[in-house]
Amino acid sequence: MKYGARNKIVGKVKSIKKGDIMSMIKFDISDPCEMGSVLTTESLDELNLKPGDEVRLVIKAIHVLPVKE
Amino acid sequence: MKYGARNKIVGKVKSIKKGDIMSMIKFDISDPCEMGSVLTTESLDELNLKPGDEVRLVIKAIHVLPVKE
Amino acid sequence: MKYGARNKIVGKVKSIKKGDIMSMIKFDISDPCEMGSVLTTESLDELNLKPGDEVRLVIKAIHVLPVKE
Amino acid sequence: MKYGARNKIVGKVKSIKKGDIMSMIKFDISDPCEMGSVLTTESLDELNLKPGDEVRLVIKAIHVLPVKE
Amino acid sequence: MKYGARNKIVGKVKSIKKGDIMSMIKFDISDPCEMGSVLTTESLDELNLKPGDEVRLVIKAIHVLPVKE
Amino acid sequence: MKYGARNKIVGKVKSIKKGDIMSMIKFDISDPCEMGSVLTTESLDELNLKPGDEVRLVIKAIHVLPVKE
Repeated sequence: MKYGARNKIVGKVKSIKKGDIMSMIKFDISDPCEMGSVLTTESLDELNLKPGDEVRLVIKAIHVLPVKE
Repeated sequence: MKYGARNKIVGKVKSIKKGDIMSMIKFDISDPCEMGSVLTTESLDELNLKPGDEVRLVIKAIHVLPVKE
Repeated sequence: MKYGARNKIVGKVKSIKKGDIMSMIKFDISDPCEMGSVLTTESLDELNLKPGDEVRLVIKAIHVLPVKE
Repeated sequence: MKYGARNKIVGKVKSIKKGDIMSMIKFDISDPCEMGSVLTTESLDELNLKPGDEVRLVIKAIHVLPVKE
Repeated sequence: MKYGARNKIVGKVKSIKKGDIMSMIKFDISDPCEMGSVLTTESLDELNLKPGDEVRLVIKAIHVLPVKE
Repeated sequence: MKYGARNKIVGKVKSIKKGDIMSMIKFDISDPCEMGSVLTTESLDELNLKPGDEVRLVIKAIHVLPVKE
């Protein structure tokens, strides 16, 4: 199994909330992991980051794809 | 600071790769965290998940928004 | 009409399911078509693809934009 | 293998174009398939669709995730 | 022309920057407009918004689809 | 506060519609602003744009992230 995506995190189902069309799942991530972000070089320059800096990684839940392998 | 998103993970910059229009940043996530996924109820039913099940959470790097608070 | 997107597929409405805020439409695609994917060069290298290889193209329904021309 | 997504189309690699950070893959889809779209109920009402109607499905290439199973 | 999307803003091309695989366009939006956001009800509750409140609407450039009508 | 995104527009809450899992917020944007779009260079070439051209910018509501600073 190989995914064309930088982020492939192992999570454990914590809760499920079922709606009419959309539903939400919450997961626990217990192990340290690596994440990748792609952004415009212009945005990168504005952020002015260097290794070791701490940032907040914001991801809308709709962009998280669960796969049962 | 309040974000209209379920996922707001703290990450530490590990490496930066600068391109012409787009760039990539890699982050280390060292603390356990919670993640949320929204999907169609149809997809949820097909996955047939229950609390405790382990899944792979796949996220394209383009959907990860770094914020320097 | 010109769209700034690689994928512009003709589909025929098959079913509609209406919800409170979000709704779902299913379409039949009957003609062969071409699709484009953009991913990080790192992900491309990991996939190790060559012309003729068969892959699964996964797209969350939320990313499909119907346009009535 | 179960994906938390409505669209899981089989494609054959046609061409690959490698860039500095991002790359593009083109695929041939030869078999008829079904696609799902999720949109707001407000947008659905404006589109005023009924079964059999033909629409254009626009998807940015960045939202297409290739998986090698 | 009817789009299955809440946001359909008129913009005027200001600058174009061409890259190897991806390119960036900047637009001027001169007229007042309305924008819609869909988020989880959980996120909405956390934001605790009421009519008249001012917020920042953050949108990655990759999610903006230009259409030449 | 620095966001890794090109679009950071100030909006005023106009209406809120709460659903079971997802909710929708409408905003008024009263000031002129700049927006950025990232697309493939191939799509850019097809659009054949030059400074001053008027286009429609289509954004699904799900991609708009409200932040309360």
